[in-house]
Amino acid sequence: MVRTLCVLFCLLCAVPARADPLPSWNDGPRKDAFIQFVDRVTRAGHDYVPEGERIAVFDNDGTLWAEQPLYFQLAFALDRVKALAHQHPEWTDTQPFKAALEGDMAALFAGGDEALLTLVAATHGNTTPEQFAAEVDAWIQSARHPTTGLLYIEMVYQPMLELMDYLRIHQFKIFIVSGGGIEFMRVFSERAYGIPPEQVIGSSIEVRLEQRGEDPVLVREPELRFLDDKAGKPVAIHYHIGRRPILAVGNSDGDLEMLAWTMAGEGARMAALIHHTDAEREWAYDSPSAVGQLDRARKEADKRGWWLVDMAKDWSRVFPENEEALFQP
Amino acid sequence: MVRTLCVLFCLLCAVPARADPLPSWNDGPRKDAFIQFVDRVTRAGHDYVPEGERIAVFDNDGTLWAEQPLYFQLAFALDRVKALAHQHPEWTDTQPFKAALEGDMAALFAGGDEALLTLVAATHGNTTPEQFAAEVDAWIQSARHPTTGLLYIEMVYQPMLELMDYLRIHQFKIFIVSGGGIEFMRVFSERAYGIPPEQVIGSSIEVRLEQRGEDPVLVREPELRFLDDKAGKPVAIHYHIGRRPILAVGNSDGDLEMLAWTMAGEGARMAALIHHTDAEREWAYDSPSAVGQLDRARKEADKRGWWLVDMAKDWSRVFPENEEALFQP
Repeated sequence: MVRTLCVLFCLLCAVPARADPLPSWNDGPRKDAFIQFVDRVTRAGHDYVPEGERIAVFDNDGTLWAEQPLYFQLAFALDRVKALAHQHPEWTDTQPFKAALEGDMAALFAGGDEALLTLVAATHGNTTPEQFAAEVDAWIQSARHPTTGLLYIEMVYQPMLELMDYLRIHQFKIFIVSGGGIEFMRVFSERAYGIPPEQVIGSSIEVRLEQRGEDPVLVREPELRFLDDKAGKPVAIHYHIGRRPILAVGNSDGDLEMLAWTMAGEGARMAALIHHTDAEREWAYDSPSAVGQLDRARKEADKRGWWLVDMAKDWSRVFPENEEALFQP
Repeated sequence: MVRTLCVLFCLLCAVPARADPLPSWNDGPRKDAFIQFVDRVTRAGHDYVPEGERIAVFDNDGTLWAEQPLYFQLAFALDRVKALAHQHPEWTDTQPFKAALEGDMAALFAGGDEALLTLVAATHGNTTPEQFAAEVDAWIQSARHPTTGLLYIEMVYQPMLELMDYLRIHQFKIFIVSGGGIEFMRVFSERAYGIPPEQVIGSSIEVRLEQRGEDPVLVREPELRFLDDKAGKPVAIHYHIGRRPILAVGNSDGDLEMLAWTMAGEGARMAALIHHTDAEREWAYDSPSAVGQLDRARKEADKRGWWLVDMAKDWSRVFPENEEALFQP
């Protein structure tokens, strides 16, 4: 009897005040949709999903943090080109390095994905994972965005941090599934989003095991291993997670296959796209756009009833108020 | 005051009796080594490892379940060859299918790894992951081992189930890292070991996203994508987990690189090999052996002080007493 009372008492102590779980989302159909979805899959009933199967996948660039005027990892690669240029005199007249050194973004983008991948491979390879992580860490703590003047890590989206917290409270397991580099994102994913390295999926370059003295060492090669974009995303999810997600959120055409494959499963599921409509507080772009183009996926969303989050209308705040919040997600 | 008392009371209720956490391990240096290692990394002090970094990796075949007289997945592949033979009249005189159909293991093993991979690719490809998982599931619930007569899933090692439980209680995150097929193991890893699909790493074949009607579907191709063995294991761990494990357990030369790379990190770490010494209750083999050869890794273990578990001496029980235990690990 004493024990029963005591358990009851503790349960009462543990019930939190009913605060708004998504304070940076304006009231409206999109905020309601997320809350109702979580409610449906966690409450006993027809749509209930057991805890282990509550898998949510989020794109990174343009979904969890900003991506304009160019993918942040590309800004890192450009800074690396400058840092490494003295070892590569040939770069001054070889594309895409010439464009990178001259800051000629038009020439760089004219080279298409291939130019960007060449740049990334050349600046990200020939290191150990430990060296590379240290370089990314130093950069993420010091480099600042060209127009906002913020640290890049300060440009994560507050409403998405709240959404991920809300999902975690309801025993969702959250994975990042991004075209960005897996080893790049893992350096800050835990600090920025509370997502541990093993829940980050991304593009990768080859690594090879090499014997150095007594010990084996992993070495990064300047060669693409896997491009985690478009049809690559469901393939990567399949092999990395081994379960089909029940919630997928993206923002661009690169996320279309991930959303379509997520929605093709049985039972309750949800797909959403972040539409960048806010030229005032962030950027407004969809199609055409050199970065994060949203065209095919938006048409598919209209056709299939996926949610389209309107950044200007749906978010009362875009970036976190203070840095502290970033590191205690 | 009432609340403090109540919390104290509940804490007291929650303290379990001091039972032996590894009852199927005989007292001795190997049992002590595991318990002391867990104690070192979880207790405040110089060797303390934060929860998120307590990563443990286990090989599967010969480490978590038996592997004689041939890898269990190969037994599955042979059963599949028989089931599919009527669709492939050419198999009756093409190796390695001929050997498989005739049950001629000597001829099959003479073809080396290539013959085995050919067999696996041909019998595992051209399905969807859902179809394949259903086939494995039906097989694992019905096929019986040729000499013990047990279901294959009944041939998991009780001492390893206890060790994994003990690690989980101490907030370790456990991954399987096996040369076996990732999609094969994931069908039963949660039931057999309490390890969810996203914590299973293995060899894989290509999958491709295909549009079928309105929906995209993943299709398995009869082509090897990644061989998760030897130097492939650290590479797979790097990309799948993104952290270096602090504990690695294997049983054969295929695990050597995984153990060596695990031990090459900073701080407290532990490596162990299961030595199959028990011809009475299981099998006795090390080198030479067509399955699970232990030669180079054993020499390295001697040289570097890795633990060598002696199955005959160290385990008071090999397989679980009853099936129920298997499904509630």
